[in-house]
Amino acid sequence: MNFYPIGVFDSGLGGLTVLAAIHKRLPQENLIYFGDTARVPYGNKSKETIIRYSLEILDFLLQKKVKAVVVACNTASAHALETLREKSPVPVLGVVEPGVNSLITRFPEIEKAAVIATRSTVNSHAYQNYILKQKPNLKLIEKACPLLVPLVEEGMAHHKVTEIILQEYLQDLVEGGYHHLILGCTHYPLLKKTIHKIYPFLNLIDASDEVAFELEKILKDRNLLNSDKNSVKIELFVSDITDTFFELGNLFFGKTLSSVEKVVLGA
Amino acid sequence: MNFYPIGVFDSGLGGLTVLAAIHKRLPQENLIYFGDTARVPYGNKSKETIIRYSLEILDFLLQKKVKAVVVACNTASAHALETLREKSPVPVLGVVEPGVNSLITRFPEIEKAAVIATRSTVNSHAYQNYILKQKPNLKLIEKACPLLVPLVEEGMAHHKVTEIILQEYLQDLVEGGYHHLILGCTHYPLLKKTIHKIYPFLNLIDASDEVAFELEKILKDRNLLNSDKNSVKIELFVSDITDTFFELGNLFFGKTLSSVEKVVLGA
Repeated sequence: MNFYPIGVFDSGLGGLTVLAAIHKRLPQENLIYFGDTARVPYGNKSKETIIRYSLEILDFLLQKKVKAVVVACNTASAHALETLREKSPVPVLGVVEPGVNSLITRFPEIEKAAVIATRSTVNSHAYQNYILKQKPNLKLIEKACPLLVPLVEEGMAHHKVTEIILQEYLQDLVEGGYHHLILGCTHYPLLKKTIHKIYPFLNLIDASDEVAFELEKILKDRNLLNSDKNSVKIELFVSDITDTFFELGNLFFGKTLSSVEKVVLGA
Repeated sequence: MNFYPIGVFDSGLGGLTVLAAIHKRLPQENLIYFGDTARVPYGNKSKETIIRYSLEILDFLLQKKVKAVVVACNTASAHALETLREKSPVPVLGVVEPGVNSLITRFPEIEKAAVIATRSTVNSHAYQNYILKQKPNLKLIEKACPLLVPLVEEGMAHHKVTEIILQEYLQDLVEGGYHHLILGCTHYPLLKKTIHKIYPFLNLIDASDEVAFELEKILKDRNLLNSDKNSVKIELFVSDITDTFFELGNLFFGKTLSSVEKVVLGA
């Protein structure tokens, strides 16, 4: 089953940054992406609903014979990862754990760090909870940055306004000596340049790179890496094709998306 | 049935600006508000789904014995108003028509105007379509301003960043001589001061005031105005109580909301 695809899903299109990182590290792998664009955002839904939606998507991906599943959505990672792992016959990887693992491995002496994320991810305390298990003496600040998603989605990642907003969100953290910053939202990798323009000394932990790295390890350990480089296929599925689909898709994926198929899940 | 309440609904909480305007003009009326916070936003849903949700809310309000219904949501006004009127035994008022009516009545010689709204309302061309019926020679520009809702929801209506963004959205319109501006989103009345700070000469048409005005006319014509000022009740219902409910609710309603009840509609 080495040539079987890797399944990647998100509530919307932000997870395409994770797909892009996986494609970059594992260019010989076939990929299937599912974006639940009809039901986005997950952030304001109950845990039960998020689990139900995530299980529907898992079923869809398993029907497509994926050999691994990446939950490229912070909200779904925070609420549904455990259930998905119980139900899935193939490995399931979220976006919260890889970011934290990388931070701890690269900076074993680290005493404090911050994660910036959507309000929903911050309220779930998914990062805090995982760090408590891994390195309880690490002091973490979880900072909600609700305007960053709309700014990125409007193509304004490098705009003056985004610089002002970033400064307001980050200034206290920086002054408090929090110089390790986990990007806890799939939209935020597009802000790396702007953040470094303002605070060049910040260590930015981009979960999408780390997910690709951990995924490679998992597939390698199980001898599941694909060796056939000649017929690589990337398939995109969404639950609704919205007006801004191609624009946003290209923004997050970093190159032109050629085609997409609409799939209706659930009732 | 004069003491029966007026029902007001929106996909979320922005419609509370309309509720506030109605309460200001008709302080003796009992009011019921329903915010579909579990299914917000409507903007990325299909017309069929928006009609289904709106009909569910109509049923709920009719069970509460409302004497009139106000659709305080641009997307639902654009897509579901006709169906709601067919199904409703009581008068149904949207937010698109009153804004346009007021513009045309106040400025009968007007040749061009603009409406600012969310991307979803602009794409529906609800304003353009209604103007074509009422005054086909009026040239209308529909301008999507997608960042204004998140900026208002973050309490940044008067922030420097909002001024910069407003300038980017409005500059071309102003320079093109479009000095009559319909506020085509229930969030935008909170931006009136900031818009006037940048462009003091702009004529801002606030649909929420116009809705209250037309509602008063309808109730008066049908002899349905309430005369008992002693027991006025404002009841709030939402489909999900989110973390930011009271904060946003107070922002849009303009005074402290005391209590709210959660109601689950549909499946």
